Amino acid sequence: MFANARAYWQSGKDKFLADLMKFLQIPSISANRELDDISVMQAAQFVVKQLNEIGMQNVKLHTASLLEHPLVTADWLHAGSDKPTVLLYAHFDVQPVDPVHLWKSGPFRPEVRDGKLFARGAADDKGQLFILLKALEGFLKTSGKLPVNIKVLFEGEEESGGEHIARYLKANSAALKADAVLVLDSGMYAPGMPTIATGLRGLICAKVNVQGAAGDLHSGEHGGAAPNAAQGLAEILTALKTPTGRVRIPGFYKQVIAPTKLELASWAKLPFDEEQYCRQELGAPALIGDKRYSVARRRWALPTLEVNGIAGGYAGEGFKTVIPASASANVSMRLVPGMDPEKVAADFVAFVKRVTPPHVRSEVEIISQAPAMVVDTANPYIQAAADAFKQIFNAETVYVRVGGSIPIAADFQAVLGAPVLITGFTLPDCNLHAPNENLDLANFYAGIETIGAYFANVGKMRS
Amino acid sequence: MFANARAYWQSGKDKFLADLMKFLQIPSISANRELDDISVMQAAQFVVKQLNEIGMQNVKLHTASLLEHPLVTADWLHAGSDKPTVLLYAHFDVQPVDPVHLWKSGPFRPEVRDGKLFARGAADDKGQLFILLKALEGFLKTSGKLPVNIKVLFEGEEESGGEHIARYLKANSAALKADAVLVLDSGMYAPGMPTIATGLRGLICAKVNVQGAAGDLHSGEHGGAAPNAAQGLAEILTALKTPTGRVRIPGFYKQVIAPTKLELASWAKLPFDEEQYCRQELGAPALIGDKRYSVARRRWALPTLEVNGIAGGYAGEGFKTVIPASASANVSMRLVPGMDPEKVAADFVAFVKRVTPPHVRSEVEIISQAPAMVVDTANPYIQAAADAFKQIFNAETVYVRVGGSIPIAADFQAVLGAPVLITGFTLPDCNLHAPNENLDLANFYAGIETIGAYFANVGKMRS
Repeated sequence: MFANARAYWQSGKDKFLADLMKFLQIPSISANRELDDISVMQAAQFVVKQLNEIGMQNVKLHTASLLEHPLVTADWLHAGSDKPTVLLYAHFDVQPVDPVHLWKSGPFRPEVRDGKLFARGAADDKGQLFILLKALEGFLKTSGKLPVNIKVLFEGEEESGGEHIARYLKANSAALKADAVLVLDSGMYAPGMPTIATGLRGLICAKVNVQGAAGDLHSGEHGGAAPNAAQGLAEILTALKTPTGRVRIPGFYKQVIAPTKLELASWAKLPFDEEQYCRQELGAPALIGDKRYSVARRRWALPTLEVNGIAGGYAGEGFKTVIPASASANVSMRLVPGMDPEKVAADFVAFVKRVTPPHVRSEVEIISQAPAMVVDTANPYIQAAADAFKQIFNAETVYVRVGGSIPIAADFQAVLGAPVLITGFTLPDCNLHAPNENLDLANFYAGIETIGAYFANVGKMRS
Repeated sequence: MFANARAYWQSGKDKFLADLMKFLQIPSISANRELDDISVMQAAQFVVKQLNEIGMQNVKLHTASLLEHPLVTADWLHAGSDKPTVLLYAHFDVQPVDPVHLWKSGPFRPEVRDGKLFARGAADDKGQLFILLKALEGFLKTSGKLPVNIKVLFEGEEESGGEHIARYLKANSAALKADAVLVLDSGMYAPGMPTIATGLRGLICAKVNVQGAAGDLHSGEHGGAAPNAAQGLAEILTALKTPTGRVRIPGFYKQVIAPTKLELASWAKLPFDEEQYCRQELGAPALIGDKRYSVARRRWALPTLEVNGIAGGYAGEGFKTVIPASASANVSMRLVPGMDPEKVAADFVAFVKRVTPPHVRSEVEIISQAPAMVVDTANPYIQAAADAFKQIFNAETVYVRVGGSIPIAADFQAVLGAPVLITGFTLPDCNLHAPNENLDLANFYAGIETIGAYFANVGKMRS
């Protein structure tokens, strides 16, 4: 069954690429919530069509409201009641594309260069969603069945912090019950190095709004007496961190559970050149952060606070000499195991209030919050994936944590009580969330075979 | 001669108002630079027609290019070579009218309510330009001559930072030579309180650009190690000032020439309610600035540094958890007498470099720089104006400074070497640059008589 499917995957590469390019042409940016922008819905419909064509069953598109993006579910449950059921997760929405002038080819005009497919969503996550579809297709088209029972839950607002899927999961936990969950939304630590994520950081997103005078003022007439909201915001943001990047909110690091000795030992063995990372990969003058900890530990196992955006007054072409009445910042915090999002959010709100200069007002809006999670590597579904990687990539799997956040992964673990396998096939230079996002095509094809091998391995287990 | 003119002004009020209302119906917004918008040109032609009708000579309309708004010049030089020559300045362009829904009557449908004429340009500066025209008309219609020699230079792009007039002034300094310049583009400190501006602050405009990594980064993946340009910019802006708003650039205050004791004594006598200014006029929680100095001194006679705008990363609707690679701020400094713009600009550049955190790069671009100016109140042309105010308003003139900048006033002083009288008849509630701009009609009529009295007073002086 696997051998036939593998032949199908190996002979179908050109078609898979052509179909993926069509999928990537849909500009499904979920941050756009204008009622007349139907791109995310079009991407959902594309996925529905694919699921039906490859032979999945009960394919459904779920719309909660016009202001939320849709979910897509499907299943195929005929492998036998003694076989495990795996729930597959990926998302078909993408990040915005600004600054668009830095893209070498249009973000929604997929183009192959040097063995990589460039387009917004190629890596995150439409390309990986496609890997799942094609892995399923290989079995269904060659054997008319799958080696395991499969449930599918794909979403359309992962990149914009939508809560549709979390509500749906809670309301439909019985229908979504599975023995394991596969979240295909991360990547490989290095080319040729299969990687499974054993932990994700949590995330709090907040907006800090600062107000000075009631309206913008003439900076000549009132400068020297009137408060400046942009200056006030700068002072608040500065007060949040030490010059080396340590977060100043009292107790911020207190609940942090340190990584295990085994994890630390494993990370220390990973290939990493700090100078190369700073200068080549980031193109930065220097790194920030607490030098007592390794860069890996800072990125994976310590909490952060980052300003994601600032705006206020006039900063465009030309000059407008106003004293801005208002200014705002998007601020997010990455949480690690041990940290309670509710408490951290409350501490953040209180600290911003405390460091707000007396001549301006500030207001904090908590947009979303999700805890960190850790996965126990001892479970057999993780082993089945490591075996599949070994089979296709001929390499041992490394276990890392992910600095990013996939809130739904923690929800899967909490609501379904099933082990969550977080993995993927993107490479470090895939330009996630940035211009020139790309997917390595060799990894795309090997990814399909690996996921197929994983299904075959799980099919040998008992539910 | 003055008595006859005065009778003309007093009997002509209705006609003056009707003519001004026609002038105000022309929507001469100079920020509009579409080639098919001829409103500013129509306003210029209206002024040309008026100048010809009242008997001024050599009336000319000057167009430099289709992308610049016109100037209007005229003269009447038959008062005698022993009489002084006064150059009159005002502008016939206006500010944009947004937000237009806040206007009680249309911005270009002049309407009288409660003794005030409401329309865009009523106060700034078409109404005041009209005061000059009617003052001249009174003499020319009743005596066929003026008590002084007059040159006129009116412009059409004051509100949009045009440089046509500055170039024209430099290229025609001999033709524009005058013993004094009258700039009628400011206002009265309070109703019934004649006001002459004895100083204007200078202005340096600069852009501060901060760069962290080469491109925006995923804040989960790289947060804790990668530098953040928005955070770096916030830290730079914070380092520029103390929490109470004192500028930290070494030597920033060193060259400042303090106001004279006379000025300080005069300002202390001005009616001013700090609480009302802060809460009602600005709508702010508190004022900033060095409490050792009065609010007047902070606004008029101390230099400032203000952030006029900030931008970086994503701060729009929704959320994008990036670490911004770049961030920028528009920063302007108001200069007071004694400060050398070249030196202040160089000090600013050096200080920004010094306070730039090591993990980001910064770059400062100086956009423009202009020095402050002060007018010596001891000159006889100022006294002639104060006498005229006394005569018509029966009140002593107060001498204030203006926190803003009128670059052409400094240019007049520098290029023509003539004393510049900066005054006007608008009131604090005239809604300059805002909805419901208005001109107090009693001040309009008294303004015509005052300018007439000023011409008569100067006519008694020797050139």
